[in-house]
Amino acid sequence: MKINDNFNKLVPNYLFADVARKTNEFAAAHPEREIIRLGIGDVTLPLAPAVVDAMQKGCEDLRFRETFKGYPEYEGYDFLRERIAEYYQSFGVKIKADEVFVSDGAKSDCGNIGDIFSQDNTVLIPDPVYPVYVDANIMAGRPILYAPSGQDEHFLAMPDKNVRADIIYLCSPNNPTGAAYSASQLKEWVDYARKNNAVILYDAAYEAFIRDDLPRSIFSIDGARECAIELCSLSKTAGFTGVRCGYTVIPHELVRDGKKLHDLWYRRQATKFNGVSWAVQCAAAAVFSPEGQRQCRKNLDYYHKNAQMIARTLDKLGIYYTGGQNSPYIWLKCPNGMSSWQFFDYLLEKAAVVGTPGEGFGSCGKGYFRLTSFNSHEKTAEAVERLAAACQN
Amino acid sequence: MKINDNFNKLVPNYLFADVARKTNEFAAAHPEREIIRLGIGDVTLPLAPAVVDAMQKGCEDLRFRETFKGYPEYEGYDFLRERIAEYYQSFGVKIKADEVFVSDGAKSDCGNIGDIFSQDNTVLIPDPVYPVYVDANIMAGRPILYAPSGQDEHFLAMPDKNVRADIIYLCSPNNPTGAAYSASQLKEWVDYARKNNAVILYDAAYEAFIRDDLPRSIFSIDGARECAIELCSLSKTAGFTGVRCGYTVIPHELVRDGKKLHDLWYRRQATKFNGVSWAVQCAAAAVFSPEGQRQCRKNLDYYHKNAQMIARTLDKLGIYYTGGQNSPYIWLKCPNGMSSWQFFDYLLEKAAVVGTPGEGFGSCGKGYFRLTSFNSHEKTAEAVERLAAACQN
Repeated sequence: MKINDNFNKLVPNYLFADVARKTNEFAAAHPEREIIRLGIGDVTLPLAPAVVDAMQKGCEDLRFRETFKGYPEYEGYDFLRERIAEYYQSFGVKIKADEVFVSDGAKSDCGNIGDIFSQDNTVLIPDPVYPVYVDANIMAGRPILYAPSGQDEHFLAMPDKNVRADIIYLCSPNNPTGAAYSASQLKEWVDYARKNNAVILYDAAYEAFIRDDLPRSIFSIDGARECAIELCSLSKTAGFTGVRCGYTVIPHELVRDGKKLHDLWYRRQATKFNGVSWAVQCAAAAVFSPEGQRQCRKNLDYYHKNAQMIARTLDKLGIYYTGGQNSPYIWLKCPNGMSSWQFFDYLLEKAAVVGTPGEGFGSCGKGYFRLTSFNSHEKTAEAVERLAAACQN
Repeated sequence: MKINDNFNKLVPNYLFADVARKTNEFAAAHPEREIIRLGIGDVTLPLAPAVVDAMQKGCEDLRFRETFKGYPEYEGYDFLRERIAEYYQSFGVKIKADEVFVSDGAKSDCGNIGDIFSQDNTVLIPDPVYPVYVDANIMAGRPILYAPSGQDEHFLAMPDKNVRADIIYLCSPNNPTGAAYSASQLKEWVDYARKNNAVILYDAAYEAFIRDDLPRSIFSIDGARECAIELCSLSKTAGFTGVRCGYTVIPHELVRDGKKLHDLWYRRQATKFNGVSWAVQCAAAAVFSPEGQRQCRKNLDYYHKNAQMIARTLDKLGIYYTGGQNSPYIWLKCPNGMSSWQFFDYLLEKAAVVGTPGEGFGSCGKGYFRLTSFNSHEKTAEAVERLAAACQN
């Protein structure tokens, strides 16, 4: 028996472990100082009451023979798929309910979607970006190219006509940079993909954070239905990181080698997945009810207020950043030419504030730093005061 | 962009669709006759009350900031992994909690575990068996061999020393035949696997149905920790088909190409999976509480009584079968030399009873038929009376 030797090519990312270790060492050495974490990548506000109510009612259904639910549909219950299609409609994008596949999260789909593609495809991945796209494709043995971005591009990688790729990952609003594509920028990607017969895997996990007039879905772009798959999640939209529910949209028009990718994904899911928990699907449907939307919006507003506190502070300090308006993330240039790790140490030492060194998200992240809006108002306000004091010295 | 052309090698299994179509046609033509379904592959009894209570309490935790849960551990919460290790201990098998990986179901793990193995491995799959092992490996492009079984083997495929395989799927108690391996039979498989440097993927989804003195886990066999992975599920044990929770056990001793398969699977799950819903893990832990075990046992006893009704009827009729004692399934030889489909039609016509033609589970299933114990006592009693009348004519 031979293992998949592509696992030997994976490079361990010790960054998050190193952040934790350094933070713990600092805490042990300075028990008198209160550390504030602006590196949190997880939501902290509780679920919307309407969502908890629906989930508990879903559980109650399982108590009685008459209302008990066994195996769910592989692709999700119709009532939830219809709610998701209506949600798209609410921001002007038309998709069909039967193009929606409900899953246990966008991370699973991001990785598993590779099953329907040949290993010979070349993958194009933005830099900096969420690291799992890279690792999933290293495991699959696919050649990987990077689409770099920096301040000149406002951290929004754009297509290079000299680069030939078959599968393109995009993430907008981007994790970690918080930058979000405009319609005309996405149109360039769609045109590039169509010209190359490529497929875009569009990670829209942060779409609910968009406040400006920017695309919430790749399917708002002409031609995207012939070249794109959209992956989305309730993790950040509705605080579902611990509930686990996401969805993937594959238009019927998306055909390669004479096959509808929709049908290939259905076959993949029918073989290697067995659907999402009944109570979780009930909770997810409640997210899209008018009451659920109102309550979830309140949480998004809460995080936005934190993001704005951070952004206004950086404005005053004259520090370059992206994000903070259409995203829970703020991506800043480390002041005074510091490296990501130098600034990490400096901020911890001077302000007892923890963030994430940008190089954990790709080599274009060197010299940059990610702060997040998931702490409380009080802690965020205190953290930015300390950050300002540290950076003015 | 090229699709994974292994999908073109998948053979659509129309059997279950054909069963549904024929049943619907019969119902439409004979509205006066009450059809009884003994083809159900899903549980029908509601969850144990202790389990629903725990799940609802888990939901309630998500309502408040103080008790809210975000991203779970990729491998499951320790409290659940410890309960599962204790459960193994209750039938005399020692595993460590940190060898347990909690997932959204054994079907996901059965398919996804392939990610850690090279595509060049030859896979050995019993015939007849649960069809997803075959499809998942066709998708991955692995060469597949079959280990056939029939009445001579009591439908328990045994190793053939002339066959060389790298990955071996076993399912005991078997779906669809209900036959379960003895310790000495499993020892033969373990010895074969070790001799061939192969890995056994042991599907124990029906272990809770075992009543006789037969192994509940492959890890009760000497040497299995060096050559086996066990996949299990709460779907049948506790009626979790709609709740979605399973677990996979990978011993630390299982090493190939110098790598612990435990660590490869952790890396796979950390990259392409994000853990199981908090409320579901709370519910799963309650399954393993003394109260949960008592309540789940009542449901298993209910199904066993149905299985025994079917088995006693076949005994009286002198029809050969396997299963029914340590399994919710009864696998019978179609009487009078009928083919699977001839008997399906005959039983539907004469008795208005629906079962599953055996050939849906592999070519060794031709001429056999699966009945299940998941209907009610009343319907099962009525069905076996009708079956007896039909087969005595």
